[in-house]
Amino acid sequence: MFESASLPHVMTKTEFEDAEARLREKLLDAQFEVADRKNAAVMVLVNGADGVGKGEIVNRLYDWLDDHFVETLSYGRPTDEERARPGAWRYWRDVPAKGRIGLVLGSWHHRLLRNRALGRLGRSAYEKALEESIRAEEMLRHEGVHLLKIWLHMDFAESRRRLKKLRQGNGALRRPAVVEWDEFDSARDIAKLAEAALEMIERTSTGDAPWAVVPAADPLYRDAAVGDLLLQTLTRAATDAPPSPRTLAIAAPANDLPKPSLVGALDLTQAADPASYSQELRALQQRLTEATTAKSFDSRGLVIVFEGNDAAGKGGAIRRVREALDPRRFRVHGVSAPTDEERARPYLWRFWRNVPRRGDVAIFDRSWYGRVLVERVEGFAATEDWMRAYQEINDFERELHDNGYVVMKFWLAISADEQLRRFQDREAKPFKRYKLTPEDWRNREKWALYEAAMTDMVDRTSSRHAPWTLVEANDKKFARLKTLKTIVDRLGTNGKA
Amino acid sequence: MFESASLPHVMTKTEFEDAEARLREKLLDAQFEVADRKNAAVMVLVNGADGVGKGEIVNRLYDWLDDHFVETLSYGRPTDEERARPGAWRYWRDVPAKGRIGLVLGSWHHRLLRNRALGRLGRSAYEKALEESIRAEEMLRHEGVHLLKIWLHMDFAESRRRLKKLRQGNGALRRPAVVEWDEFDSARDIAKLAEAALEMIERTSTGDAPWAVVPAADPLYRDAAVGDLLLQTLTRAATDAPPSPRTLAIAAPANDLPKPSLVGALDLTQAADPASYSQELRALQQRLTEATTAKSFDSRGLVIVFEGNDAAGKGGAIRRVREALDPRRFRVHGVSAPTDEERARPYLWRFWRNVPRRGDVAIFDRSWYGRVLVERVEGFAATEDWMRAYQEINDFERELHDNGYVVMKFWLAISADEQLRRFQDREAKPFKRYKLTPEDWRNREKWALYEAAMTDMVDRTSSRHAPWTLVEANDKKFARLKTLKTIVDRLGTNGKA
Repeated sequence: MFESASLPHVMTKTEFEDAEARLREKLLDAQFEVADRKNAAVMVLVNGADGVGKGEIVNRLYDWLDDHFVETLSYGRPTDEERARPGAWRYWRDVPAKGRIGLVLGSWHHRLLRNRALGRLGRSAYEKALEESIRAEEMLRHEGVHLLKIWLHMDFAESRRRLKKLRQGNGALRRPAVVEWDEFDSARDIAKLAEAALEMIERTSTGDAPWAVVPAADPLYRDAAVGDLLLQTLTRAATDAPPSPRTLAIAAPANDLPKPSLVGALDLTQAADPASYSQELRALQQRLTEATTAKSFDSRGLVIVFEGNDAAGKGGAIRRVREALDPRRFRVHGVSAPTDEERARPYLWRFWRNVPRRGDVAIFDRSWYGRVLVERVEGFAATEDWMRAYQEINDFERELHDNGYVVMKFWLAISADEQLRRFQDREAKPFKRYKLTPEDWRNREKWALYEAAMTDMVDRTSSRHAPWTLVEANDKKFARLKTLKTIVDRLGTNGKA
Repeated sequence: MFESASLPHVMTKTEFEDAEARLREKLLDAQFEVADRKNAAVMVLVNGADGVGKGEIVNRLYDWLDDHFVETLSYGRPTDEERARPGAWRYWRDVPAKGRIGLVLGSWHHRLLRNRALGRLGRSAYEKALEESIRAEEMLRHEGVHLLKIWLHMDFAESRRRLKKLRQGNGALRRPAVVEWDEFDSARDIAKLAEAALEMIERTSTGDAPWAVVPAADPLYRDAAVGDLLLQTLTRAATDAPPSPRTLAIAAPANDLPKPSLVGALDLTQAADPASYSQELRALQQRLTEATTAKSFDSRGLVIVFEGNDAAGKGGAIRRVREALDPRRFRVHGVSAPTDEERARPYLWRFWRNVPRRGDVAIFDRSWYGRVLVERVEGFAATEDWMRAYQEINDFERELHDNGYVVMKFWLAISADEQLRRFQDREAKPFKRYKLTPEDWRNREKWALYEAAMTDMVDRTSSRHAPWTLVEANDKKFARLKTLKTIVDRLGTNGKA
């Protein structure tokens, strides 16, 4: 990996100045193209040993670029707001908007590498984490975020010697420097670190996001090389060639073969006993209150998704859940038109924003499944985009599950006749009228398409860590009891499905 | 304050149901009006003793309203990200967007009251904090955020008895309840709390944001009363009557009297000695590095504002500061067009977002002063809006200062001739061309207006806690040295001006 990088790479001052003059103009042109088109964002991940010039590179890029569209994203010890959520949350929080450039110090690779070299991550956990980062980077690339992953190469031991020279008698630094590996001191520690770094670079160099290993012994060569790499990245981002859509794999029989509907298999005549309903409801709510206010819940968290036909009773079911929760520790998220800050970032960003702290509850009244339901049916998303969404959603939910959250998803199903009855009822009642829009009538005409999309969705995203529960909802009371019971039962097994 | 609220207020079930039927429809109508017009936000502050139904009120409002435009904002112990910033930051962070309703549990009043009753805030600090909250609420009102401050009234001792009944044998709650005052147990503690609450309600009931004291012994009356108050608030927010602009006070002689210009009084011929410039620059940068990497800086933080004429050299001055900083601990914020999330909130919100953690440095390349400079000169802001901005800005900066931050503001001044020379130079150099826009030429024609606005700005916002430094910038090197020297000198005195 580092073979040629270990050979001398040097530039004279004149050579550098020539290169710089050429670079600056082109970099600015490319940057403005990206800023104007707002089709893509760029993240420059600056990694490497200490003393190798990570900070100098950042400063140099600020000088070369228009710094109004550049931001530094740096990650040290996680804050408690970060620790209270999945590990990926803090990186998601900062994804730069399209048109902008993020300079990243202490990227996710740094954290992985550190934990591995310190022996905190075993072999298989390390490999799993590397795989996950590859998939996350692939998702970013598909969503218009171009990564430039730079490894500034210098022997770790040599870099330590350089760093030492930067320190004054009292240990203070003469110039600012990005010190990330201070705890690796002995030759043995450093060898471990170098070994883990090599492996990480091997394993996470993908076609979508390869590592660029830059020889860093000579600062002039180093800066010119990074500038050149960034220019290439910006140029590609400006023309925003999305990864060419692969020919889609075939995973289902042709459309004209009969496809049984999951909803068709439900017994929608099921109903709650009106006589015992209130009592059962109160008992289930009390169990939910106890489960979510127990000390042990502080390290968990609950993410509940409600999807279903229009007028299936999502609001009423959510209300019965909500009533049992501490109002300070839940939040209901409806889906509304994305803001421009959301549109400028990957699709899942708007949902990552709302991942609750551990110990809290987030209820999504419609959710990230919009992409494979309404966006698919209405043609708002291209086929390759909603096709890849299944895996991205599974990754997202697995991340939540692996971090202690209980993830539950409910599909509230009613028959077409029952829906018609409810629409008419809504038209008649003043304070329900606002719930009915012309769109609801239009959606109704696409009943079969939504049913097919829903069947695919459940087939592809009902996972062990985040199963779908189909709820027969022609009888509202039955639906509410079943929803609540499913939640408290799953919490009772500590979220294991 | 509580005289009439202590009398019995009760409603029969029938009375309540009549009232509710009327309320629900009107609440929804008013809410949709607010949501559609997006002119105003509403915050409902739910305060009062425990066991008095704070959580029940929140649930009731979710039922009555369309919950897609409602969010609960609740505040307990500050997180470390919150503690790392001024106390007001966490409330700013959550201000609901226009069109939305926030239900607030544990508002800033709660925290004040608690600290006062626990004896952590002395008399004068408490009164100062109350005054600050009044001014912040006034600002919110001017910016289209309508506050409904509800105090659910019940005797604290009675409320404790009610809460006890809610607990099971093992201490767990039978139903969720908002418990905020658990540490106040003895009769003496409770008396202190009641006394402090009374004073707070007296002192912070203003014309813009009065407290509504709601008798809470009867849940039906309580809910109907809150619903009615909210309906009034929503109706007012829907018609969005901004507080009638008071006749502006006269604070300056008439415009046709000669007004000396602050810039006119500067000696712009000052220049750095080219022979010693590099050495002086390096020495100052090293002092800045030392000051900002010292342990003691971790509890401070630095906020630097750069304003000045176009082409005055802000970018170059910022660069010399930046080079001396740890790239992980500073951020440069340019001003660009506000996003829709920013436009939906009070003016200062976009800057509060960027208040750095303590120990970090934020550099603003143009800033919140836009309101009293470009927005005033170009007529983008109404006179009463930029007139009140001076005080709001002073409050903002004082808040930063009181929380340990060093706030510094630089005006880089060049002569009109020097500007012309630099514009022409920019036109000639390829990688500087992007810095010159037609707007720069237009601004240049309004030189005198900008100079007057700048003079007013410095007169009104150069405070002891956040002084302006005027920098003679015809010679770029002189300007860079003066800027750096001012910063390191002020840091050397621990930020005392």
